[in-house]
Formats: sequence, C-alpha cells, structure tokens
Amino acid sequence: MCNFAELPKTAHLIEVGPRDGLQSEPDFFPTAAKIEMIRRAVRAGIREIEATSFVHPKRVPQMQDAAEVIQTILPELPPEVEIIALVPNEKGFERAVAAGLRKVRLVLTASQTFHRKNFNQSIEETQAEFAQVFARGKAAGVNCVGIIAASWGCPYEGRVAVEQPLRLAEGLEQAGATEIFFADTTGMAVPTTVYRLLQEAVARLSVPVGVHFHNTRSTGYANVVAALQAGVNRFDTSLGGLGGCPFAPRATGNIATEDTAHMLNEMRIETGTSLEQLISTVTWLEASMGKKLPGQLAKAGPAFL
Amino acid sequence: MCNFAELPKTAHLIEVGPRDGLQSEPDFFPTAAKIEMIRRAVRAGIREIEATSFVHPKRVPQMQDAAEVIQTILPELPPEVEIIALVPNEKGFERAVAAGLRKVRLVLTASQTFHRKNFNQSIEETQAEFAQVFARGKAAGVNCVGIIAASWGCPYEGRVAVEQPLRLAEGLEQAGATEIFFADTTGMAVPTTVYRLLQEAVARLSVPVGVHFHNTRSTGYANVVAALQAGVNRFDTSLGGLGGCPFAPRATGNIATEDTAHMLNEMRIETGTSLEQLISTVTWLEASMGKKLPGQLAKAGPAFL
Repeated sequence: MCNFAELPKTAHLIEVGPRDGLQSEPDFFPTAAKIEMIRRAVRAGIREIEATSFVHPKRVPQMQDAAEVIQTILPELPPEVEIIALVPNEKGFERAVAAGLRKVRLVLTASQTFHRKNFNQSIEETQAEFAQVFARGKAAGVNCVGIIAASWGCPYEGRVAVEQPLRLAEGLEQAGATEIFFADTTGMAVPTTVYRLLQEAVARLSVPVGVHFHNTRSTGYANVVAALQAGVNRFDTSLGGLGGCPFAPRATGNIATEDTAHMLNEMRIETGTSLEQLISTVTWLEASMGKKLPGQLAKAGPAFL
Repeated sequence: MCNFAELPKTAHLIEVGPRDGLQSEPDFFPTAAKIEMIRRAVRAGIREIEATSFVHPKRVPQMQDAAEVIQTILPELPPEVEIIALVPNEKGFERAVAAGLRKVRLVLTASQTFHRKNFNQSIEETQAEFAQVFARGKAAGVNCVGIIAASWGCPYEGRVAVEQPLRLAEGLEQAGATEIFFADTTGMAVPTTVYRLLQEAVARLSVPVGVHFHNTRSTGYANVVAALQAGVNRFDTSLGGLGGCPFAPRATGNIATEDTAHMLNEMRIETGTSLEQLISTVTWLEASMGKKLPGQLAKAGPAFL
C-alpha cells in the first residue's frame, strides 16, 4: 500500500513549450509570438522556461531565432525566473552563453541507435564532447543540466535496461551536471517503471532529479504521480500539451502545463502557478497557432472554482 | 513512499462503451453495430460488458433497442462472459430480467442537485424505489450492482464530502448490492482523493469495490493507478475512450479500454485482453462512427512489440 501523505508539498514546473513544444511544428512560429509565449508563461507563475535550443538553424529551422529570443526576453524578466536552452555541443554552448544564459541542457540518449539518429555520432563521442562543455560551464559559472532521453524505452531498440540511463546519469553527474532529468521521449513509461528508475536515481545521485514525460499512450499524468511517490518533483511540461513526437505523428506529445498544474493543485501540491492565466495563455496559443492543442483543462475548465 | 510491488496482480475491465460510451452520441448507432461492438469486445478478451440501459426510450433514444441487443447477444456468448445493463427503476429492472439479464446496475448520485437532474426525484426517493428492486433481485437471483455517481465532485454542488458516497455505498450494500462502483462522472477526481475514498470504502464494505473514471481533465489513468494502490482492481473502461460528458462538451470522456489495458500490461497486471484485438476494434469503431476517438493507443501503437 501507499502513503500519499508523504508526497512532496511543492512541485517545480519547467515550461518546455517554446522549445520542445514548438520544435516539431512545421510552420515557423514568429519570434515575437515565441517571446509573448514566454512572457505569458512567466505571468502565469512559471519560474523556469526552456526557451529555445542553440542547434544548427539548418537542422531545426524553427529555432533559428534562438539568440534573438533570449536577448529580448532576458533583460525584462525578474531575477527569480530562469531561462534555459538546449545545447547540442560546444558551439551551441558558446552561442547560448554569448546570448546571456546561465543554465543550459545537454542531452544523451539511453539507446545507441536513437542517440546516433539524433546526434549523428555515438553516445561515447557525445560524452567526450560534453566533457569540454562541462569544463567550460564550470569555469564560466554556467549550470549544465544533463538530460537522458529515451530513459524508459526506445522506438528503435525497444526496452531499455534500467542500468543504462542510471549509468549515463552518474557519468553526467561526475562530469559536472548540476541536475539530471530523465525523459520518456516517446511515451513508453508506466508508473511502475517510472518508480523503479527514479527511486534508484534519487538514491544514487546527489544532484536534483527531474522528469520529462510525454502523454503519447495516456500514461503521462500517472507517471507524474509515480515520480512524486519516488520523491521527484521537477517536471517538464508544455502549455496546451504542445509538441508531438515524429515517431507517433497522430499522438499527443508533452504533458500539458495546465493539466499538470490542475492535478497537482487538487492534490494540494503547490506549483506557484495561476490556472486562470495558464488557461488564458493556452487559449491565446491556440488562436495564434490556428489549431486546438491536446491539453484538456482549457476545454473542460477547472474541476472546482 | 509507496510500494508498487503490492499492487493487485490482475485487473478486471468492464466495457461500458455500448452504454455509457454511446449514450451521449447524437446519431443512433445501429443495433447491428452495437451487437458487433459487443462481439468484438468479447473476442478481445473482455469478460464483462455494460451492454445497454433499460431507460425510457424517449429519455435516451440511443438505448431504445435495449431488449433486442440483449436478446441477440446473450445466447451466443460463452458462459464466462457477463452482460449487464443499467436500470433506473423497477420497470427497467423488469425489462432487463425479461430480456434475460442476471446482473444489473443501479445508480445513486452523491449530490442531491445532480441526482435530481438525472432522476427527477430526490436521492431518498430513489433509494426507496431501489429497495423494491433489490428485493426482487434477491428473489430472482439477479445481482444488483450499486453505482455512486459524482463520488468525487459534482458540476452543480462542487466538492463532495467523502462521507457522502461512503454513506450511500453502505446503504446500497445493506439493501443487497453485490458490488459497489464509485464513479467520477465529470472527471473531477485526482489520485489523492481517489485513494482517500477507496481506502475507506475497501475497509468499510464487504462486497467488491470498482471504479468508473472519466479522463475529462487528464487524470483518469493516474486515478486508475491510485485505485490499484488502494487495492481496487475493477475498472469501467470504454473502447476508444468513447463517451463524452454533456457538461464538458469538448473534453474526452471515459478512460479508453485499450489505453488502460496497455498501461496495466506494462505494469505486469494481467487483464486477459488482447491489445491487438482491442486496437482493431477501435479502428473498426472509428470507421463505423466516422470519427476519431480520444483513446491514444490506436494512434501511437503499443510501446513495445
């Protein structure tokens, strides 16, 4: 049996809509709209935002305005708001820091095949490159967060042994990662597998642990609760559940910020967000994108007023 | 912290698509298609099906073929498959038994306002009427299952004190209910409130306890896991997640049979169903209805083959 009374009292939501959410959108979302999306998220109480990624603009054209987004938004935000970005390599790190960022995210994949598809090199080659990035991060006082993609399964290799993401996480921590996030990139995790990996991760790692869930097969929110039960309370979410997965084109993507905040509110876990403002931001986002997003709270409204 | 190792090893899925799923569909789903839907569910391994409701045909025209559906399907099914129906009153009970049913469901609502909207009478008036039905059920050897609608909240009255559904459940058990189901009719429950009510219900009731969740606000599958953690393993589900809620017209309805079965499979909880056949039934259902359903597994496919 389970003791829900021992759940964390607060949760930290990291808004990844502007990066992971928009990344797979075929149409370019205008720079001004990206900036407005970040502003609105901050107004709704979000305190950490993955705003963009410093990848090669030819590889991800949607993120070609990375420097402009960061340079516009940074000066106007209160100091308690953290703006972060994904960097794939040393070049990306340089660009991110030049734009003013003090925290970046570095991704390894828990399966070799999937990693090679993403990075065009082996896990070991990326690890070697990241060692340089970590060294520069340490020297410059820039926090480097390690992300382990496909921690619960890979669309190419299938099941991933629990030791694989754990081993990569320990390596990233030793290299200097200041936080570790485990990502269920294509929505293959279920509460029992989430709990098993995270319980182990929390026991073995000294840095804060977070998670990134996709709701591809309806388990995303159940996985949030399993993570909380393992003591993990840092969640990547995206406004409206924006962000699909290229491997399951008709399936929904990230867990929605507003649906997660609503569930946590009702569970008496404080997120610091305003449901009303999250919903109005989703309404604005849907109008801006000209389509409905998969998050459900904006459709159904909060359970209790 | 939580011990996922103590979860039930099996789960029993009750397919409610033919009744709760179809009930709110504006277009009449042909009788032959309803029968085919039940046949396919049985072929996919489902062992209990809420096939229809014996309500007044003017009140719910979709269910006007209740007797025909039951009389056609009953003779052809193997004895281990239970076909059940909702009955609102003694008249409905008579019709259900005349059609050959040996198990029916009776609904009370945990809030007075919502109950009156559904039944046009008070909870107490319905309880009095049900006493007659239970007596006739006992005499005829027909099992009567008690359902408590709006157990976790009411769209009119808001929050529902945990004692209210528990008190109604105890009353139904005393009257002769052979099982009790708690329903989150408009998707207002979260894992902590699910756990709180069910832990209490399991402790107080002697009959088997089940649950009926809607995914209106993305918490349906998380609530399934919380129910399992409270020791409850009987779940109403509907193929494709068919079945909206009139109070949240654009939000999805029941938790999907195939998504629930997939999650439970991955959690090593046996449901006795074939994912492949559940998915092909959803594909058939979507084609028959000419629309996409909210369940995600039919879109994304199983996580692992």
